[in-house]
Amino acid sequence: MSRTQISAQQNAAYHAALQDILRAAQQLLAGGGSALDAVSLAVDLLEDCPLFNAGHGAVFTHAETHELDAAIMDGATLRAGAVACVSRVRRPLRAARAVMEHSEHVLLVAAGAEAFAQEQGLELVSPDYFSTAARREQLQRALATATAVLDHDGASLLFREPAANASPLDEGQKLGTVGAVALDAQGNLAAATSTGGMTNKRPGRVGDSPLIGAGTYADNRTAAVSCTGTGEMFIRMATAYDVCARMAYGGVSLDTAAREVVMKALPTIGGRGGLIAVDGRGNLSLRFNTEGMYRGWARVGETPLSAIYADADEGCAA
Amino acid sequence: MSRTQISAQQNAAYHAALQDILRAAQQLLAGGGSALDAVSLAVDLLEDCPLFNAGHGAVFTHAETHELDAAIMDGATLRAGAVACVSRVRRPLRAARAVMEHSEHVLLVAAGAEAFAQEQGLELVSPDYFSTAARREQLQRALATATAVLDHDGASLLFREPAANASPLDEGQKLGTVGAVALDAQGNLAAATSTGGMTNKRPGRVGDSPLIGAGTYADNRTAAVSCTGTGEMFIRMATAYDVCARMAYGGVSLDTAAREVVMKALPTIGGRGGLIAVDGRGNLSLRFNTEGMYRGWARVGETPLSAIYADADEGCAA
Repeated sequence: MSRTQISAQQNAAYHAALQDILRAAQQLLAGGGSALDAVSLAVDLLEDCPLFNAGHGAVFTHAETHELDAAIMDGATLRAGAVACVSRVRRPLRAARAVMEHSEHVLLVAAGAEAFAQEQGLELVSPDYFSTAARREQLQRALATATAVLDHDGASLLFREPAANASPLDEGQKLGTVGAVALDAQGNLAAATSTGGMTNKRPGRVGDSPLIGAGTYADNRTAAVSCTGTGEMFIRMATAYDVCARMAYGGVSLDTAAREVVMKALPTIGGRGGLIAVDGRGNLSLRFNTEGMYRGWARVGETPLSAIYADADEGCAA
Repeated sequence: MSRTQISAQQNAAYHAALQDILRAAQQLLAGGGSALDAVSLAVDLLEDCPLFNAGHGAVFTHAETHELDAAIMDGATLRAGAVACVSRVRRPLRAARAVMEHSEHVLLVAAGAEAFAQEQGLELVSPDYFSTAARREQLQRALATATAVLDHDGASLLFREPAANASPLDEGQKLGTVGAVALDAQGNLAAATSTGGMTNKRPGRVGDSPLIGAGTYADNRTAAVSCTGTGEMFIRMATAYDVCARMAYGGVSLDTAAREVVMKALPTIGGRGGLIAVDGRGNLSLRFNTEGMYRGWARVGETPLSAIYADADEGCAA
């Protein structure tokens, strides 16, 4: 939604949720926890929070179902795990982590991913566990305004992406992704991302979030990166990995790499959104080419901060 | 299979198939056809040929089914399309191209991808269209030798990847991918990849082939790349995009980038396989860290060449 449409009350709810989650992850890291566990915990909590488009509170597909995607990557080993198009796994990020830790694979999708999650003893839920009234209203609005084209046999609808001006803070919040990146005391980086995708998406559509290199990447030698935005453009530019590649081969800093990718590269193909990233020395970058991006950051021993819009003074201390 | 296991007759069949396909794509390019059409044609023909692990002749999953993946990318526009886990689309690469050209998405999977292919009027087949006796025997051998572990409720099996020494020419050819890259007279690059994945794979597993940046990438400013090998490691290293990134940010040549990726980077995480690539000036690179890789290359006006093993003198002229 545009800035004027977001109420002060809504903003306060987002800040409170972000800061609660930051404090939990901060505490874990302060106690010697790993970056991998910190991003797992943060995304678990973000998935459970109905404000965010992941887990409970995920957007609806065109078929009025939910299809959830998630990925995690360990910067120390380059191990990674991801699931896409799951509808019954309560915490998709935990399924992604199980793929990383308990399979020889990186990406499992649809029924095969759900069967794996079940074998791993992860919690399965009825698909309507993810539904909220607010997301259902968003779908109704999207259906009312979508460009609908009957396909050749009239049996179903084709539909278009949100307009080019859609953003993570777009009208009705049709997009959105949750993600976390962390550096731990051992110097290890990790990244995790989870999403319901985009409102009114075609069933079977997979965005950048669960694709290693597109929406999620971590390598101790460079950075941990988690992206949000118009996923297709992030896939076409291998956005998360591109940040690391610019650092590794171009020798630029994390923030320079992130700015080049978000402010220069993505806009050449209409890519809108942003990313959060941390490098191996603890430098942070939270860059976006949209009006805002819900975000927060915390260092051990410092007060967590959260922000929504681009204004530097918009940061809100806990 | 090891070199000694491959009969001269089998080798001849592969050379003949590769060279027929090279001549068809060469003719298309000589007539002014686009790189996109050339890689589409080559992969169409490779999918139809039962010798290769894509389309008809694809390997079997653990569930004795076929799950096919494909991707295509246009280096001029960075547009891309892909499908994964389809079982009824006769030519998965055509479905990937339809995703690129007739949807707003990049990746569609499973039932959603098949529904889209059907809407697009693409040919659907019975899943057993893809089956061949040779691939069924490979599954039986894989099942007999796989490390099988009963899962927690005894309902299904977990199983491991092929051993670390598996390769595109491994015992029984459990892996394998077809791919094509091309440069056309307009200076445009394109890449396409298609595969049945790996024999005895878990249903729902997606490898690198359909993932833009992992198994497939094309950018006119750098190169078109298509990969084959132990897909999970290629995903974790964003292999196809990494070749382009090393060229773009590191300033190295295509072949230097390809050698760094295949001979140095991938082996650090046990990645085995190779890639084919062409840059915007027509330089080729066909690199692999295995005993061999079925491959061929042709320039307009020159005799197509094909090869299997690493020996420089192994190239076979048409």
